Amino acid sequence: MYKNRIEIIKKHLEVNIPTNVNNKNGIENELFNPIDTNFNVGELKLLIDSVEASKYKDATREFIKNHPKFKENFIGLNMESYRQLVLEQCVAIANSGLIHLTDIKNNLHRYAGAVEMFSYYNNNVCTKLGVHYTLFGGTIMFLGTSRHEKYIEDANTLKTMGCFAMTEIGHGSNVRGIETTAHYDKQTKEFIIHSPTPTSEKFWIGGSYLHATYTTVFANLIIDGTNHGVHAFVVPLRCAKSGSIMNGIHIKDCGHKLGLNGIDNGQIRFTQVRIPRENLLNKYSDVSEDGIYKSQFNTPIKNFAATMAPFIVGRMAITKGCSGAAKTSLSIAIEFSHLRKQFGPTPNNELPLITLSSQQRRLMAPLARTILFDLYIQRLTNELCQPKLPASIHAHCSGIKAVYSWFCVGALQTCREACGGQGYRSANRIAEFKNDCDIVCTYEGDNTVLMQQLAKYLLGLKKKPTTANRIYLDGDDAKSLLFNFANIHQLFETREDIRLAELKQIISNSKESAYSAFNNAIPWAVKLGFAHMTKIVFQNSVDTLKTKNVKPLAHLVMLDALVSIEEDLGWFVSNHLISPNVAQAIPFLIQDLCSEVTKVSKQIIASFDIPENCKPESKDLISDLF
Amino acid sequence: MYKNRIEIIKKHLEVNIPTNVNNKNGIENELFNPIDTNFNVGELKLLIDSVEASKYKDATREFIKNHPKFKENFIGLNMESYRQLVLEQCVAIANSGLIHLTDIKNNLHRYAGAVEMFSYYNNNVCTKLGVHYTLFGGTIMFLGTSRHEKYIEDANTLKTMGCFAMTEIGHGSNVRGIETTAHYDKQTKEFIIHSPTPTSEKFWIGGSYLHATYTTVFANLIIDGTNHGVHAFVVPLRCAKSGSIMNGIHIKDCGHKLGLNGIDNGQIRFTQVRIPRENLLNKYSDVSEDGIYKSQFNTPIKNFAATMAPFIVGRMAITKGCSGAAKTSLSIAIEFSHLRKQFGPTPNNELPLITLSSQQRRLMAPLARTILFDLYIQRLTNELCQPKLPASIHAHCSGIKAVYSWFCVGALQTCREACGGQGYRSANRIAEFKNDCDIVCTYEGDNTVLMQQLAKYLLGLKKKPTTANRIYLDGDDAKSLLFNFANIHQLFETREDIRLAELKQIISNSKESAYSAFNNAIPWAVKLGFAHMTKIVFQNSVDTLKTKNVKPLAHLVMLDALVSIEEDLGWFVSNHLISPNVAQAIPFLIQDLCSEVTKVSKQIIASFDIPENCKPESKDLISDLF
Repeated sequence: MYKNRIEIIKKHLEVNIPTNVNNKNGIENELFNPIDTNFNVGELKLLIDSVEASKYKDATREFIKNHPKFKENFIGLNMESYRQLVLEQCVAIANSGLIHLTDIKNNLHRYAGAVEMFSYYNNNVCTKLGVHYTLFGGTIMFLGTSRHEKYIEDANTLKTMGCFAMTEIGHGSNVRGIETTAHYDKQTKEFIIHSPTPTSEKFWIGGSYLHATYTTVFANLIIDGTNHGVHAFVVPLRCAKSGSIMNGIHIKDCGHKLGLNGIDNGQIRFTQVRIPRENLLNKYSDVSEDGIYKSQFNTPIKNFAATMAPFIVGRMAITKGCSGAAKTSLSIAIEFSHLRKQFGPTPNNELPLITLSSQQRRLMAPLARTILFDLYIQRLTNELCQPKLPASIHAHCSGIKAVYSWFCVGALQTCREACGGQGYRSANRIAEFKNDCDIVCTYEGDNTVLMQQLAKYLLGLKKKPTTANRIYLDGDDAKSLLFNFANIHQLFETREDIRLAELKQIISNSKESAYSAFNNAIPWAVKLGFAHMTKIVFQNSVDTLKTKNVKPLAHLVMLDALVSIEEDLGWFVSNHLISPNVAQAIPFLIQDLCSEVTKVSKQIIASFDIPENCKPESKDLISDLF
Repeated sequence: MYKNRIEIIKKHLEVNIPTNVNNKNGIENELFNPIDTNFNVGELKLLIDSVEASKYKDATREFIKNHPKFKENFIGLNMESYRQLVLEQCVAIANSGLIHLTDIKNNLHRYAGAVEMFSYYNNNVCTKLGVHYTLFGGTIMFLGTSRHEKYIEDANTLKTMGCFAMTEIGHGSNVRGIETTAHYDKQTKEFIIHSPTPTSEKFWIGGSYLHATYTTVFANLIIDGTNHGVHAFVVPLRCAKSGSIMNGIHIKDCGHKLGLNGIDNGQIRFTQVRIPRENLLNKYSDVSEDGIYKSQFNTPIKNFAATMAPFIVGRMAITKGCSGAAKTSLSIAIEFSHLRKQFGPTPNNELPLITLSSQQRRLMAPLARTILFDLYIQRLTNELCQPKLPASIHAHCSGIKAVYSWFCVGALQTCREACGGQGYRSANRIAEFKNDCDIVCTYEGDNTVLMQQLAKYLLGLKKKPTTANRIYLDGDDAKSLLFNFANIHQLFETREDIRLAELKQIISNSKESAYSAFNNAIPWAVKLGFAHMTKIVFQNSVDTLKTKNVKPLAHLVMLDALVSIEEDLGWFVSNHLISPNVAQAIPFLIQDLCSEVTKVSKQIIASFDIPENCKPESKDLISDLF
C-alpha cells in the first residue's frame, strides 16, 4: 500500500520555492524583536471576549463573583449534595436574567459567552445548563412549532427543567440505529413511547434522574407498521406540580462517573407511555389526526439529517466549556509557576518554576492555542448567527469540538503535572476540570467519528488541489522563512491538499467494499481533519491580526503555528514541504518564542479576567495549608 | 542557536548505508508472514510474568480471586469508607504470607510480582503497600542497623504500620532543601524533631493521617549548631496500643485528591518531638552518646546520596502499578471492542468496534509497549537483586519510572476514550485506574526532574559516539529495511549519540552560568532521556526474543519500534537517518502490524490472566445495566 502512496507524493513534487518575502516589514516584523511587555491588557481582553459577547461576559463575571451559590464549596462533595448545589446554581442563573431559553436561536453570543464564563468556575454548571438550554431548549426552538411555545416560559425560569433523551444503551454514535418506538394510535390520537428492548433504554440522560420535568425523546415514528424514521417528541417525565414520576416511566441513576458527578445522569425505560399527538416536534414532519404522515422531505434519511442539524450549535457551545476550563487551569498553573520555587543556582537561591525552560515549553504552547481556538470559535459563532448557514458549518462545528476537546484534555494534564503534587489536590481545582472535561472527547459525537464527518465533507467538496500552493521551505535563514505567515499558510494549505489526495487514493486503491475501504483509512481521515482545522484556525488568526494587531497576538500565532508543524514534522519533511535544515531549527525557535511569551504570561492570564472564586484559595496553591 | 545545531548534524553525516541483511532468514522472518494465531498462551504468560516471579504472581492471583475483601465494592465510596477498606485489604495481605517486610531487600521478585498483581485490582492497595513495605520498610532495611530490627516483626503483620515523611510543603523534588530539624540533646541523649516553619511541615505523607504507628522522618541532623545534612530517623506518631497521637505531633488530612482517595495522606507538624538517639537510622552515619558525629562519608552530600540511594527500588516498584493498571485497562477496552457493535456496512449489520482501523491503531500500540516495558522491568529487577548494583541502576530506574508513567497516563486515556461513554462510568474501572495512576508522573521524583537525572548520567559517561553505528535507511523496499532489528538498533543508537552530542553542544555554547546553560537545555535533556530509554527497552526486547522466541513477541517488538520512530519521525528524517520515502511507509506498516496483532489480541490479554474481580462486572461494560 505504501508504494502507491509514495507515487502519489512524487507527483506532487513540482513545487514553488517561496520568493523571499520581506516579512520584516509586515505584521511579522515584531516577531524579530523582543516581545513588547507593556501592552494594553484591556485590548487583549476585548479581543478574547469578542466585541459581540463582551458585555454578556462581564455581566456573568459579576454574577459569579457575587452570587452566594458560587461561593459554596464543591470539592469532594458527595454526589447527592453536589447535584443539589449544581441545580441551585442553575436556578440562580435562570432567575438572574443573564440568559434566556430562546438565546440558542435568538442571541447565541449571550448564551455562549455566559457558558464560557461559567466554565471558568466549573463544568458541571455548564453541562446542566447545556442540557436544558441547548439540548432541550434547542429541540423545542428548532424542531418545534408554535404549538410548543407553551414550554418556554416555565423552562426559562427553571420552574420546569428539560432534558434530552437521544442516546440509548445500544446506540450512541450511531443515532440512526436507536430502537425506541413511537407508535401512533389513531383511536386516541396519541403516540405510544416504548423501549422495546433492554438496549433501547435511554442512557446518560443528564438531568433525568432527579430534576427534569420534561424530556425530548428521539424515537422511531411508526404508523400502521410503517417506520418513518427517527423523530423528536416531548414527553413529561414527572408531574410538574408534585414532582412524582409519570406512569410507565422508570428512571435509574447512571451512577458514579470519572467526572461531572454534579450531574444526575439517568437511564430511562419507557413502558407504553402515551403522549398527545401534538407532542411530536413537527417543524419538518407531522402526523394528522387520522394518522397520515406528511414530511417536507421525501426520504427518512433527509428528515433525520434535518432533525439532527440543530445540534451543531451544541457542539460549538461545548467548546466553550473547554475554553473556560483551559483558561482557568492554565492561569492556575502559570500563577503557581511564577510563585513556587524549587531548585536554583545555589541551595539558598531557589528560583520560580517558570524560569525552567521545560515549564515555559509546557505552558506557553497551550496558552497560545487556547486563545487562537477561542478566536476561531468567535468566527464560528458569527457564522451560526447568520440567517443562512454556510455549507461548511456542520463539518467545522464537529471539527473544532473534536480538536478543542482533545487539546483540552492534554492541556489540563499538562497543567496538573506542571503543578506537581499540588495539581493533584482537588482544592486546587485543576483535578476537577480535568475529570469533568474528559467526557467531551466522546459525548455529543465521539471525536473520531466527528473527524470522519469532517473528512467526508472535505472529500465531498471535490476540490482540485492547486499546484500554485505548493511550497518547499529551504534555506539558511530558517527563522525568516518560518516567521512568515504567507509561507505558513501555504504549508498548511499544501498539507491539506496532499492529505486529501492521499485519502482519496487509499480509498480508491482498495479492493474492498466502500465501507471497508473507508474503514481502513480512518486514521488518515483523522489526519486530514487535523490538517484542515489547523489551517482554518491559523488563517482565522492571521485574518484577525490583519484587522486588529493586538499585542502579543502575533507571537501567539507564530508559536502555535510552529508547534503545529512540529507535531507533524515527520510528515512535512518526508513530503518535501520543509527541508531538513529548516526542520532542525523549529524546536529552537519554539523554545525562544516560549521564552518571549513567558515574559507577558502574567498579562495574558490577567486578560482572561477570571473571578477569584473560580480559582484556588491561594495563588501559590499552598497558603491555605497553614 | 539552531545554526550551530545544524553544523553538528552535518558532521555526523558520514553514514554507513546498511548492507542488505537477509532478515527474511532471521528472527524477523515471521514478520513477513500473517501472524500465527495458534500460539501457546501459557508460554506468553510465563514470559510476561517472568520465571522468577511467576509462582508469586499466581499465588497472588489466587488470593485476589478468593479473598472476600477483594470482592467488596470501592466504586464511588466516600473517603472514609474507602480508606478503611484499603487498610483492611492491606491487613489481609500482610496476614496472608504472600509478601514479607524484608522482601524489599531479600526477595524483590516476590514483592514486585505481588504488587503488579494487586495493581490489576486497584492502585490504592498498591500505594498503601508501597508506603509501608518499600518506603518505611526500605528505610529500616537499607538505612537501619541491627538496633532497628525490632520494628520488623510487628510491621510485617501490620500490627504496626509505617509511613515515610520526606516531602515537605516547601520542598518536593528538591529534597536537599528540606527544613525539618533534628537537634541532638547531649543531656538527655535524644534527638528533637521539629518543624521550624510552615513550609517545613511534612506533606502528602501516605498512611499518616489515620493509620501509621511509626514514620521515618528525613531531617537535618544538627549538633551544637552544626548541620550535618539530611538523615533519617524513626519517629512514633501514635501509641502502638491506644492509637492516640503522640505529644508534639499534629496531623491534618491532605484532603480530597484527583485519585487515590483510599489513601490517608497527611500533613505532619512536629513540635519539639523527642526521640531516643538510637532512632537515628545509622547505617552510614551515627552520633555517639556524647554528641560526636561519625560518617562513612567525608561530606554531607555523599551521605545524602547514600541515604537516597535505596529508594530507587521504590521507583521500580511504582512501575508495577503502571503495569497492572495498563494491562487491566487495555484488557477492558479490548474485550469491549470485540463485543460492542456500532456502525457497519448496512444498518442491520453493525460490526464490533475492534474492526475499525482507528480502534486497532489506538489499542494495539499501547498493548505492545506495555509488554515490552514489563520485559525491561524484569531485567531491572534482576539487576536490583545483584549483590553489586550496576552503575546505571539509578538512572535507569528513574528513566523507566518516568517513561512508563507518562506512557501509562496516555494509554489509560486512550482506553477511556476507546470505550466511549462507558469508559467514563466508574463501574467500568478504567476511570479509577486513570485517576490513581496520574500521580505517578510527579511523585517519587517529578518525571521531568528524573529525565534530567538520566541525561546527566549519560553526559557523565563521557561516551564517544562511534561512527560505526551511523545509519541511513533508504531504498525502495522500506519494509525489508525496517523489519530488521539490527537496523532499528542502529537507528536508536545513532539517535542517542546525536542527541547526546547536541545536548553537550547546547550547554557548552551557552554564555550563561552552568545552572542556566543546563536549564535552557532541559527539553533536549528530556529528549535524550527518551532516546536512551527507547533504545535499551528495544534492545532488551530483542535480547529476549533471541533467547525465547515466544509468539507474538516479534510482532510486538516491531510494532513498538515503528511507533517509537513515528513519534520522533521529524527528527529521524531531518537528521538524515531515515529517507523521506522510507518515512512515508511507516504509518502504513504500523497500521498493518496493528491489524495483525488485533488477530491475536484476545490471546494476549488472556495471557495476562487477570482475575475476574479486577474487571467490570460485564465484559461488554453494559450488561450490568439491565
